[in-house]
Amino acid sequence: MNEVPGIDVIREAAERIRPFIHRTPVLTCRALDALSGARLFFKCENFQNVGAFKIRGATNAVFSLSDQEAAPGVATHSSGNHAAALAQAARWRGVQAYVVMPENAPAIKQAAVAGYGADITLCQPTLPARERGLAEVVARTGAAVVHPYDDARVIAGQGTAALELIEEVGGFDLLMAPVGGGGLVSGTALCAAALAPGARVIATEPAQADDAARSFRIGSLVEARQTHTIADGLRTGLSELTFGIICKYVYDIVTVGEDEIIAAMRLVWERMKIVIEPSSAVPVAALLSGRMRIAGCRIGVILSGGNVDLDHLPWRP
Amino acid sequence: MNEVPGIDVIREAAERIRPFIHRTPVLTCRALDALSGARLFFKCENFQNVGAFKIRGATNAVFSLSDQEAAPGVATHSSGNHAAALAQAARWRGVQAYVVMPENAPAIKQAAVAGYGADITLCQPTLPARERGLAEVVARTGAAVVHPYDDARVIAGQGTAALELIEEVGGFDLLMAPVGGGGLVSGTALCAAALAPGARVIATEPAQADDAARSFRIGSLVEARQTHTIADGLRTGLSELTFGIICKYVYDIVTVGEDEIIAAMRLVWERMKIVIEPSSAVPVAALLSGRMRIAGCRIGVILSGGNVDLDHLPWRP
Repeated sequence: MNEVPGIDVIREAAERIRPFIHRTPVLTCRALDALSGARLFFKCENFQNVGAFKIRGATNAVFSLSDQEAAPGVATHSSGNHAAALAQAARWRGVQAYVVMPENAPAIKQAAVAGYGADITLCQPTLPARERGLAEVVARTGAAVVHPYDDARVIAGQGTAALELIEEVGGFDLLMAPVGGGGLVSGTALCAAALAPGARVIATEPAQADDAARSFRIGSLVEARQTHTIADGLRTGLSELTFGIICKYVYDIVTVGEDEIIAAMRLVWERMKIVIEPSSAVPVAALLSGRMRIAGCRIGVILSGGNVDLDHLPWRP
Repeated sequence: MNEVPGIDVIREAAERIRPFIHRTPVLTCRALDALSGARLFFKCENFQNVGAFKIRGATNAVFSLSDQEAAPGVATHSSGNHAAALAQAARWRGVQAYVVMPENAPAIKQAAVAGYGADITLCQPTLPARERGLAEVVARTGAAVVHPYDDARVIAGQGTAALELIEEVGGFDLLMAPVGGGGLVSGTALCAAALAPGARVIATEPAQADDAARSFRIGSLVEARQTHTIADGLRTGLSELTFGIICKYVYDIVTVGEDEIIAAMRLVWERMKIVIEPSSAVPVAALLSGRMRIAGCRIGVILSGGNVDLDHLPWRP
C-alpha cells in the first residue's frame, strides 16, 4: 500500500476524486507580488470542500477501498482537517468514520468533524497517545485505517492540488507548500518531478515545529517535539514514507517564526480578502521573509486551508 | 451630466474602465445555498481593486473628464471606499485627488485613501458638513467634483458589476445589492432592466439606516438620519437621481437588523472563506432572514467590498 506513488497514480487519484472535490481557483495579488518581488500564484485550497486540501487524500483513500474493506468504516487520528475530510469522504461512501483527535485541536475543527457524523475519541496531544487511541478504535470496530499522511493513497490524493495548479498555470520556478506530516509536500513534489521538472519544491515549516527541517538537514528522521505553534495543522512529524520522498524530491525546507506566520496570515486576509488558516500562511511568510532568493520568479503557492476560529484570531490583543 | 444612463452608456463605461479594474470572480457556496433554499451567485467585488465596487464608478468618472477638466484634480466627499477609489483613479489619470471624509470613517479606510496619495480633509459625519467641506475644497483648488453616487458617470460605472454578472451567469430571478447612496443598486437595476428583464432587483439596507426603504414606501425622498449601523458604507442617503432610478427600476427594499448583518458577515467568512465588509453582508442577511420568498430562485448577489479593520471585528466580545 505504501509504494511511492508515481504521476500515473496521482492522475488516477484525480479521476477518482473528481466527482466530489472542487477544482479550486488560482488567485493572484498585485500587492503580494510587489512585496515579494516575485510572481505568485495561489492555489486556494482554503475554498476546498471541508475547507482544506485534506479532502483530496482522504477521498482518494476511502474510494480506493473495496466494498468489503470499507464496510466496517474508516478510522484515523488527526489534528483536525484530515479528520473532517475523512468524515466527509466516509459519508460520501456511506460508511462510518472513527476519529481520534488531540484534545487541543481547535473547537471549530472538532465541531466540523462531529458535524460530518464522525465518531470522535479525544486523546492527549502526543503522537503515541494518538496512535494508541487509534489502535483501540480499530480493535473495537474493524475499521480501515486512513493515516493522515503515512499512506500512498493519501499522498497521491494531495498531489492532485499541484497537478491542477501545474496544468492551469505552469512555468513555475518554485512550488511551495507547508510541511507537517508531509503528505501535501510529498504529493506536490512527486507531481512536480514528473510535470514541472524545472520547478524546485520548497517545503515551509514553523520554526517552533521544525522537525522536518532538522530531519532534512541531518538526513535522518527526528521526532516531532510537542509544540504550540499557531499553525496547528503542522504540529505532527513526518513518517518514514514522507521523509523518504522529501529527501529525494524536495529542494529545501524553510522555517519561519510565529510572528512572521501571523503577519503573513493577516496580510493575506487584508490584501487578498480571503480567509486562510495559519498553516496556509507559512509559505507566504517564507516568501516575505527576505531569506529566499525569489526576485522575478514564478512561484506556485498552495494555500492549504481556511478553517479558522473567528473568536480566537492571533492578532487579537 | 446627470441623465439616467442607459445600457449603452453602461457598456461604454465597461470599455473605459476595462484596462484598470479586475473582472472579479463569481463564487457559489453549497452551504449558503442550503441555508437559503436558493441558488446564489456571488459577484465578488471584495476582490476588486481598492477592495470595493466603488473603483468602477470613480474610474469611469475620472476617465470621462477632458484633460482640461481633469488637470486641477478631482474631489469628493465619501465615508471611505469611494474616497479610496477616487484617489486610485486620480493616480491612474495622473491628477491630484482631494477627499472630504467624515471623522468617524474606519481607520483602515482613512489609511487606504492617504496611501493612494489623496489630500484628506476630515469633517463632522453629517451630509451638510461633508457638502460644506467639499465646497471649500473645490473653491480652493478648482478640482472637478465626482460625487460618490449622485453622478450618472458613477452610476454607469457601478452598473458594470451587474453587467459582468449577468453576462457570466444569467437566468436570474433576483438580483440583490446593498443601498446606501444608491449608486450601486441604481446601476444594477438599469443594467438588469435592459439585459435581465425577468430579474427583480432587490435593494437591501440596514434597518438602522432605512432612509431608502422609507423613501421608497412613501414615494418621497426622506433625509438620512445620523446612524451608527455597522455597515458604514451605507450610512448615506439617496440623491434625487438615485431615488428616481430606484423608484422606477427596483422591485423592493428589504431591511435587516445589525445582529443579522453581523451573523451573515461571519457566516460568509466561515463558509466561503472570503473577507467581506458589513455592507456586503446586508443582502446576505436579507436572504437568510426568512422574510423573502426565494425558494428555488437563482439569485445574483453583489458583494460590494472587503475593507474591514481586522482589529475591530464586530463579533469580538
